[in-house]
Amino acid sequence: MELYSGQINKLIDELAALPGIGSKSAQRLAFHLINMPKDRVDRLANVMIEARANVRYCKECYTLTDKEICPVCANPRRDHHTIMVVENTRDLAAYEKTGKYEGVYHVLHGAISPMLGVGPGDIKLKELMERLQGDVQEVIIATNSSLEGETTAMYISKLIKPTGIKVTRIASGVPVGGDLEYIDEVTLLRALEGRVEL
Amino acid sequence: MELYSGQINKLIDELAALPGIGSKSAQRLAFHLINMPKDRVDRLANVMIEARANVRYCKECYTLTDKEICPVCANPRRDHHTIMVVENTRDLAAYEKTGKYEGVYHVLHGAISPMLGVGPGDIKLKELMERLQGDVQEVIIATNSSLEGETTAMYISKLIKPTGIKVTRIASGVPVGGDLEYIDEVTLLRALEGRVEL
Repeated sequence: MELYSGQINKLIDELAALPGIGSKSAQRLAFHLINMPKDRVDRLANVMIEARANVRYCKECYTLTDKEICPVCANPRRDHHTIMVVENTRDLAAYEKTGKYEGVYHVLHGAISPMLGVGPGDIKLKELMERLQGDVQEVIIATNSSLEGETTAMYISKLIKPTGIKVTRIASGVPVGGDLEYIDEVTLLRALEGRVEL
Repeated sequence: MELYSGQINKLIDELAALPGIGSKSAQRLAFHLINMPKDRVDRLANVMIEARANVRYCKECYTLTDKEICPVCANPRRDHHTIMVVENTRDLAAYEKTGKYEGVYHVLHGAISPMLGVGPGDIKLKELMERLQGDVQEVIIATNSSLEGETTAMYISKLIKPTGIKVTRIASGVPVGGDLEYIDEVTLLRALEGRVEL
């Protein structure tokens, strides 16, 4: 039974194939788009096409950008001797939002995951090692605190240690404002292990 | 502070303007689109543009369709003497999914809402009254069970009663499988008022 006519169904199907959009949201979105002014739909469609066509990796840090070199790498006031390694561009943005990190980044575009068949060769690790040929003083590993993130952090630190460059890992523990009662045991133990003297 | 480069920001902004898509989802979607194969992005963009350009109201029931007459109205095996009035095309689809309704529909595209400034002239009511000039035996009002839906139902029934055509309202009560404990008082009272003899 076909509930909607052809073009509406096609639109719903395309939208439902996007991540985080279920069939109900896809229907709601489809009818919203159909009722939107024609020029706004055209604009959204064109922005999608253009972004897909023009966005590429920054030649230095491999974040996604529409320029040859991303704004962070192009900024001479950033500390280019300190590299923070993150899994993806959204993680980079999360640290940029703090406004306190002065160094540059390196975006891996993934994390090592034997389960998903992602090996060291599938992320931008070779590219990181090439950057270390330059004058780098510290590599801060800011991969996620997940199994894959920790595996990747360990792998990278072993790879870099022999070069003599300082390798650090962002702290893991109880989030600020977090209520102990609702925090998982692994995090609680990690916070205990990482305790600092007052 | 600009977290992402221009075209990524533009895409995120356009996506975040859609209903039900917050800024986090917009970011996730944007990066998903940028990493999608080029031809899939083009297809999605074109389906949006085409649906927006070609989808219009069915000439009979005013549902959204890409044909002159929608599949339900065009089906000679449907009972064209029974019209179910719904607020929008998604509500029509909800009843079509039951597979048990044999009549046709009339889509109002909204409900009367003094709060939102939507009056009887802003929904497809005049068009409904015109359809009643034909051979109609029953009008089933299936607007939502909200304040606006009930107001609209009452308004329509008062409008139709003088014509002598039978007007009915879908039942309101405890949903099937609903646990009384979790159902609001208004629904419980409505279910009590609408009780039927066994």
